[in-house]
Amino acid sequence: MNNPGQEPSGALGVHPLHGLPEIREGDDLGTAIAAAATGVSGAPGSSATSPAGSSLRSGDCVVVTQKIVSKAEGRVVTLDASDPDMQRRALIESESARVLRRRGDLMITETRHGFVCANAGVDASNVPDGSATLLPLDADHSAGRIRSALSRRLGVDVAVVVSDTFGRPWRQGVCDVAIGVSGLAAIVDLRGSLDGGGRELEITEVAIADEVAAAADLVMGKARRVPVAIVRGLDAAWLREGSARELVRPAGEDLFR
Amino acid sequence: MNNPGQEPSGALGVHPLHGLPEIREGDDLGTAIAAAATGVSGAPGSSATSPAGSSLRSGDCVVVTQKIVSKAEGRVVTLDASDPDMQRRALIESESARVLRRRGDLMITETRHGFVCANAGVDASNVPDGSATLLPLDADHSAGRIRSALSRRLGVDVAVVVSDTFGRPWRQGVCDVAIGVSGLAAIVDLRGSLDGGGRELEITEVAIADEVAAAADLVMGKARRVPVAIVRGLDAAWLREGSARELVRPAGEDLFR
Repeated sequence: MNNPGQEPSGALGVHPLHGLPEIREGDDLGTAIAAAATGVSGAPGSSATSPAGSSLRSGDCVVVTQKIVSKAEGRVVTLDASDPDMQRRALIESESARVLRRRGDLMITETRHGFVCANAGVDASNVPDGSATLLPLDADHSAGRIRSALSRRLGVDVAVVVSDTFGRPWRQGVCDVAIGVSGLAAIVDLRGSLDGGGRELEITEVAIADEVAAAADLVMGKARRVPVAIVRGLDAAWLREGSARELVRPAGEDLFR
Repeated sequence: MNNPGQEPSGALGVHPLHGLPEIREGDDLGTAIAAAATGVSGAPGSSATSPAGSSLRSGDCVVVTQKIVSKAEGRVVTLDASDPDMQRRALIESESARVLRRRGDLMITETRHGFVCANAGVDASNVPDGSATLLPLDADHSAGRIRSALSRRLGVDVAVVVSDTFGRPWRQGVCDVAIGVSGLAAIVDLRGSLDGGGRELEITEVAIADEVAAAADLVMGKARRVPVAIVRGLDAAWLREGSARELVRPAGEDLFR
C-alpha cells in the first residue's frame, strides 16, 4: 500500500483532509482539524513517526478555505429578506476601502486588508440561503490561531494558509490564493540567486503562498465540502514567519489601480 | 519505502523530473522527457504497471516550462551587442498586439496570443548572455507535440501543460500559469453544480490549468534547472481536450484593459 506519510525527495503531496464536521460560529477550527487529522478515514495515512497517530507532521502546510474560517469566527451576516440585494451592496461597500469597478451585480473593490477582489469577498455560496460570509478580519491571525491549536493538540509545527477564490483581470477562471499565512513565507525572494547560466534571475519574487493555495484547490473540489488540505514536502527554507500583507502590492506601485 | 507511483485516493502528487539534458534548438522535447522519465535517478519511482519501466502513466499531467519549449523550437533571439536594450524593446513591441502600460524598463503588453504579461514574455534569464527567448508561437500545439511523442515513445496518454511565470496586478510576486495545454481542460466549468447547501455555486469556472502550473512550480525551483514536473492524481473528468485560449478573457469583457 502506498504510504503518503513520506513524499519522495523533492516531491510534493497534496492531500484532502476528510472528516471535518460542519463548522459553526465559535468552533475552534484548529481543534476540529486536529481531530479530523487524527481520524483514520480519508486522511493521509498515519505513521509511527507522526505524533499521536495523526496524519499531520511538522513541516506540513495546512490549507484552510476562507469560508470555514469566516463561519468559525462568526463573520456571517443574515441578509434582510425584504431587500437582500440592496443589503448585499451595502455590505460590500462597508467591507471595501475603495471601489475599483462596477458592472451589473459585480463590484471589484479593494478590501480593508488591501486585497482586490470581487464583491469585497462577500460570498453567499456554501452558507444557508439568505446569508453571506465576510472575509476574516485578520486572516494571518486566523492562520496563527489554527497553527497554535495544532501545535498544542498534536505537538507539530505546521504552516497554515487561509485560502480564498479570486478572479483576476485578463484571464478567465478563478484560482485560489492566500489571504492569510502563519509559519510560511508568503513571498520567496530569489533576488540575487543565479540561474543555471550564472546570470542573475530577472524574476525574483515568487508568491509561494498563492501557489500553495492553488495546489490545495486542486484536491478540494468546489462542491465537495473538503475545506482543508495538507501540503507536504514544501522547501523547509520557506517555513518561516510570513504575512499575507506581503502579497498586497502598494497602490502607488500598481499600474492597474 | 514510499512508492510515489500511486497517489492515495483524492490526493495529488507533484514530482520534479530530473535528468533532462540542456535543451537546444531542434531537440525533440517529448523524446527527451520520455528518456528522462525512463531513467531511474530522481524520477518518480517506476512501477510494474508503468509502460516500459517509465515513471509516467496514463492520466498524469506533464508540466513543461516555456523556456525549454522556446529553446527547442528555436524561439531564441541574439541581441545586437551594440544596443541590446533598444533591440529588446523592439522585440517586445513586435511580439505584442497592444501595449497596456510602460514604466521604466517594464512594459505590460498583450501578446498576439491574447496573454497579458510583462515584456510580451521576452525573457533574458536562463539563456546565454546577449540572447532572449520569445514565447512559443502556439503553445497548445507545443503541448500537443510533446503529448504525441510521449504516447508514441511510452504508450501513455498524458496531459501536457506549458507553463510560464507571470506577474499580476494588485498582488506582489509572480505565479506560474498555463500558456498551452493538451489533453487537459484549461477551465473547469462548475456552472449549475450545487454546493453542499444545495445552492447553485456563485463561482463557476476554475482555471484548473493555471492551478496545475502553480502546483508544478512549487517543485521546480526557479534556479534549480528542473523544467519539467509530473502532476499525478488530477480528476479524470478534467482530462479532455482543452486550449489555453479558454484562459484569455476577451478584451471587451475585461474591466481592466
